[in-house]
Amino acid sequence: MTIVVETIAALRAQVRAWRAEGLKVALVPTMGALHDGHVSLMRAALERADRCVVSIFVNPRQFAPTEDLDKYPRQLALDLDRLEKAGVHLAFTPGVEEVYPQGFATSISVGGPSAELETDFRPAFFDGVATVVGKLFIQSEPDLAVFGEKDYQQLCVVKKLVQDLNLPLEIVGSPTIRDSEGLAMSSRNAYLSAQELEIARRLNKILRKAASALEGGADEAVTMAAARQDVLEAGFDAVDYVAARQSDTLAPWQRDTDGRVLVAARLGKTRLIDNVEISAS
Amino acid sequence: MTIVVETIAALRAQVRAWRAEGLKVALVPTMGALHDGHVSLMRAALERADRCVVSIFVNPRQFAPTEDLDKYPRQLALDLDRLEKAGVHLAFTPGVEEVYPQGFATSISVGGPSAELETDFRPAFFDGVATVVGKLFIQSEPDLAVFGEKDYQQLCVVKKLVQDLNLPLEIVGSPTIRDSEGLAMSSRNAYLSAQELEIARRLNKILRKAASALEGGADEAVTMAAARQDVLEAGFDAVDYVAARQSDTLAPWQRDTDGRVLVAARLGKTRLIDNVEISAS
Repeated sequence: MTIVVETIAALRAQVRAWRAEGLKVALVPTMGALHDGHVSLMRAALERADRCVVSIFVNPRQFAPTEDLDKYPRQLALDLDRLEKAGVHLAFTPGVEEVYPQGFATSISVGGPSAELETDFRPAFFDGVATVVGKLFIQSEPDLAVFGEKDYQQLCVVKKLVQDLNLPLEIVGSPTIRDSEGLAMSSRNAYLSAQELEIARRLNKILRKAASALEGGADEAVTMAAARQDVLEAGFDAVDYVAARQSDTLAPWQRDTDGRVLVAARLGKTRLIDNVEISAS
Repeated sequence: MTIVVETIAALRAQVRAWRAEGLKVALVPTMGALHDGHVSLMRAALERADRCVVSIFVNPRQFAPTEDLDKYPRQLALDLDRLEKAGVHLAFTPGVEEVYPQGFATSISVGGPSAELETDFRPAFFDGVATVVGKLFIQSEPDLAVFGEKDYQQLCVVKKLVQDLNLPLEIVGSPTIRDSEGLAMSSRNAYLSAQELEIARRLNKILRKAASALEGGADEAVTMAAARQDVLEAGFDAVDYVAARQSDTLAPWQRDTDGRVLVAARLGKTRLIDNVEISAS
């Protein structure tokens, strides 16, 4: 039976009670609209901890005024059902006023890996993420938290946040879950028409081709330009970025280091992101 | 015997051991150069908690490039002797690299009470304070922390930081300690010549006169202008601000609410601040 709490006080009391019993507690922060990708994060959490807490909170501070805050999918009853089936012990479902009460005026900003990529197109995004995630960590006091590699830059920013603020927990990155065609699971896939879905499914193949080329010694600028062209030819309307970066710092990629190819592209009104590994060996 | 630790890991291990025994732990953050004002904070801590931790760290991030970071008084041996005599249980004396390792890139920013006053003259000051104090709270995990009312705007900013980030500790404000003439104890008083000391001692009397006038119904603008004039006539070289504000939010003061008169003034190369209560009754 998943316990559902809406207040920080109730969340903290339950987690502290578990930790006082010597139980290890994992947190999986989500914005709801749960899919198989999220369930894999819960599974990763339950492999490493005795208790799994999932937060469901659509964080207004990480949406720009022009973005999809209002139409972001919300389906709490369905989500709670998924948590129940996944064996999650506690769902934290605060209202906006619980997280950001009247007069709230504090923000956390992480430099380093937040530079460029998403920030070039969503300038306030990572401040919103760092602020809410920092608060969630302080509110819930978990031993570890699990984030998906799907939002790869976010994972790097969260690791840096934890390191820089000395937050006493471990961050676990969990591999992206994909459909049979390689499309990364995302709550925003729900926005896609049948035709757009076919186009979206080509994105990961293009990234894998680019990563293989780099691993094989191809020139970086040429490979990235070709990948951009491939994304547009697949049917996307615009490419925000496609770039090769070092794995942890997201500094410019250097041959013979582990890296990632990261992409953000627009398809109709939907913006999709994905990334794949560039192996150094 | 005061335990002295230089690493976050050793600090956290000791505080956790105490808390596991059911002992209540108080933190007093300082920049060293300890005087009777600091000792009064330790006393306030020891009245409320079983164990008192004092941090000594001159935080480079709260000094502007033009400010007195390099000449800020440092006297660790004397400070540790004071901690010993005050019955402090643990001194946390990290080096700069322990607090801000290579690549550190995160900052915490508190709005609300940080607006104007000090921020008008030291724009990055409260970001530096909020970042280091937030880190200290996360590093040391105390039940409570004591701050002096001498740095009144800082006290309000720290309370707001704790509230907004849901940090699980209580902030205690402790009254300003003054010499027989009313001069607020400050590490920066060490910069004053004998002649400047005489001038500095007039500052608190001027503030008390202004607060009394406001309590007696005098016009706010007239009273603040007179106070500014009084500070200059006492011999100060410049007045950064003298202002009446509400006690908690530092919003503009309103008659019949508790408030504070706050001042910052320059005397030679030294900048002094002080504040007094405006009682609503």
